[in-house]
Amino acid sequence: MEIIKNTREKCPLVHCITNYVTVNDVANIILACGGSPIMADDINEVKEMQSICNALVINVGTLNERTIKSMILAGKKANECSHIVVLDPVGVGATTLRNDTVAELLNSVKFDVIKGNISEIKMVALGVGKTNGVDACEADKVTMENLDEVIIFAKDLSNKTGAIIAITGPIDVITDGTNSYITFNGDKKMGKITGTGCMLAGVIASYVAANLDKKLEATVMAVAGIGLCGEKALEYAKGTGTLHIGLIDEMSNLDDKVLLEGAKVEKR
Amino acid sequence: MEIIKNTREKCPLVHCITNYVTVNDVANIILACGGSPIMADDINEVKEMQSICNALVINVGTLNERTIKSMILAGKKANECSHIVVLDPVGVGATTLRNDTVAELLNSVKFDVIKGNISEIKMVALGVGKTNGVDACEADKVTMENLDEVIIFAKDLSNKTGAIIAITGPIDVITDGTNSYITFNGDKKMGKITGTGCMLAGVIASYVAANLDKKLEATVMAVAGIGLCGEKALEYAKGTGTLHIGLIDEMSNLDDKVLLEGAKVEKR
Amino acid sequence: MEIIKNTREKCPLVHCITNYVTVNDVANIILACGGSPIMADDINEVKEMQSICNALVINVGTLNERTIKSMILAGKKANECSHIVVLDPVGVGATTLRNDTVAELLNSVKFDVIKGNISEIKMVALGVGKTNGVDACEADKVTMENLDEVIIFAKDLSNKTGAIIAITGPIDVITDGTNSYITFNGDKKMGKITGTGCMLAGVIASYVAANLDKKLEATVMAVAGIGLCGEKALEYAKGTGTLHIGLIDEMSNLDDKVLLEGAKVEKR
Repeated sequence: MEIIKNTREKCPLVHCITNYVTVNDVANIILACGGSPIMADDINEVKEMQSICNALVINVGTLNERTIKSMILAGKKANECSHIVVLDPVGVGATTLRNDTVAELLNSVKFDVIKGNISEIKMVALGVGKTNGVDACEADKVTMENLDEVIIFAKDLSNKTGAIIAITGPIDVITDGTNSYITFNGDKKMGKITGTGCMLAGVIASYVAANLDKKLEATVMAVAGIGLCGEKALEYAKGTGTLHIGLIDEMSNLDDKVLLEGAKVEKR
Repeated sequence: MEIIKNTREKCPLVHCITNYVTVNDVANIILACGGSPIMADDINEVKEMQSICNALVINVGTLNERTIKSMILAGKKANECSHIVVLDPVGVGATTLRNDTVAELLNSVKFDVIKGNISEIKMVALGVGKTNGVDACEADKVTMENLDEVIIFAKDLSNKTGAIIAITGPIDVITDGTNSYITFNGDKKMGKITGTGCMLAGVIASYVAANLDKKLEATVMAVAGIGLCGEKALEYAKGTGTLHIGLIDEMSNLDDKVLLEGAKVEKR
Repeated sequence: MEIIKNTREKCPLVHCITNYVTVNDVANIILACGGSPIMADDINEVKEMQSICNALVINVGTLNERTIKSMILAGKKANECSHIVVLDPVGVGATTLRNDTVAELLNSVKFDVIKGNISEIKMVALGVGKTNGVDACEADKVTMENLDEVIIFAKDLSNKTGAIIAITGPIDVITDGTNSYITFNGDKKMGKITGTGCMLAGVIASYVAANLDKKLEATVMAVAGIGLCGEKALEYAKGTGTLHIGLIDEMSNLDDKVLLEGAKVEKR
């Protein structure tokens, strides 16, 4: 696998409509992993901007009336152009606006990858009318005990949406509905910096857009990769500030060899 | 006092409607000090979002017509829920829009803490019709010479607003109208990085929300704490970039013992 | 030349209407180079805010309907006040909205400095009806081979707009229509962090506003200076994260002596 090599060579243009909290980190991690970021959210330019890009990330972290319209328009355009579209449903479940927006996005746009923590992905499933799976994994944490149930739930959601589902947490679950992987990289200390999830969405979009014949593997490697970079940065970080910067350093230096050696991946 | 221990244990959810210049730093410092940040500013979700949080920070640094409405709505909701509300009137005095917005906020929302530099706090006082105090401390700097006047002014404003007043500068003045403290931590080099004031508002909200029976002490410790973290970071910072990152590192490592030892606090 | 000394002494207030991706870096680099940043973009305060400042940076990186109006209004006000105005036409050429906005800005506001890469500056030239120059330097890269043509093109654009033109790239071209300089500082690795161009616009505005009698030299030194800071940071950076932070560190430590020694500048 040469996921990273391909990304650095093809340098996919990744259009992001993302939250203003972590947007700088998202741009820097996309550059670090080999892609090229473009942020644009005005309704009068998102279609045109998307048409010259290779991928789109929609992150609802600080959604507002103006940008919601732009998300939908850009998503539809990306579908028309057969570009990669990644959904990061940040905080869905917290408010009706987020739930409604994610439901509308799921109805209007076909996503290649949907990533989130287990709570967010459960809400996404609700948004597409999938209640059983939610009931089936009521716990908020993926453990070795409920892992099989979570995988069944994720595969089902993948089949319903046509998207690769990536559930992040201490144990990550990634599936395209047929094949499934779990990964164990990362450290809970990464939760003490904002934006690791948003950054992951940018890396997924970059890797997948540069590896269209291996979308599932590219997603798995993005999830394992950001975790591995966090582990490496934790070896020398003096606190959460240097962890944040170290994470980007490590991503900018990562190559396929190091990633394959460090990735803790298991096929399920 | 176990201000920090309580914060790390209770991990209060702090909803911020803040400026887009320093929002990433605010999120990261809230995580570093033990809280959990949520940024949301759309009028259609701020009430619902606030209802599931423990505190609200309103920072007018890059206010606009859309977010001003959200600030007022979120503030009222926080009051309804008896959540902690912190006002950071960034740049009030610079434009009529800021003055009017701060005046409207003061009329609509009951704040637990209002923090700012002496110029901003003077403008806040004007906004609540308190002109004497402003006249009383015309100088733009708090010094040992005018300190008593500033404390009287701050106590008066505290009594008029019902909020703890925190005036930051080389000498910080914090009062709840009855008891007053001055603190001396920090270094003027911290003024060469953007957002230390915005970050402080996030730390105050976190500490106070986790120490409801000691609001004044929590505010004092937040003010002293961020200054102390800056002092520590300055010991090794190579410039303003590493000072910025070091400040967050230090906050993520701070505990009550170190803070109590390093805090330069005097009761007045 | 005491460009930096003057900037640190006068500490010009630089009002920025800039993109939300790199706004924190822009604020921090303005502080690092000796200026003082103020970000404000609401239509109801930009005129008043600009009136108390010394300079304005207009960056269209994440323009939207709301902020476009504010840009024009603030630009006109800056002209009325004879304040320095810098245009950073980020991504012009990518969408009709950007092209139209830049054209409208050029029609409504007189700029002191327009900076961009060669592709952006070509689009700016198109926006003022200057097609010859664009044809004349079709290549997207400034090389020693096409350098003379690029300088003629830049001088022509400078004369048409009345602005200093700064074309950034491996070879930077800076001209006021009469005198021209090329600079060679920097490293292509700087392209792997977002915002170096946006930061440069902030440094240009600060240096020029503090050196009104030497606008061209101030611009040249800003371009060379940020490149030199990047070179210095690359000596110890472990990746793009520490390069980003190191760039700001170096700018905060830069003085005229170091800059003059390290600047690779040639008069043309």
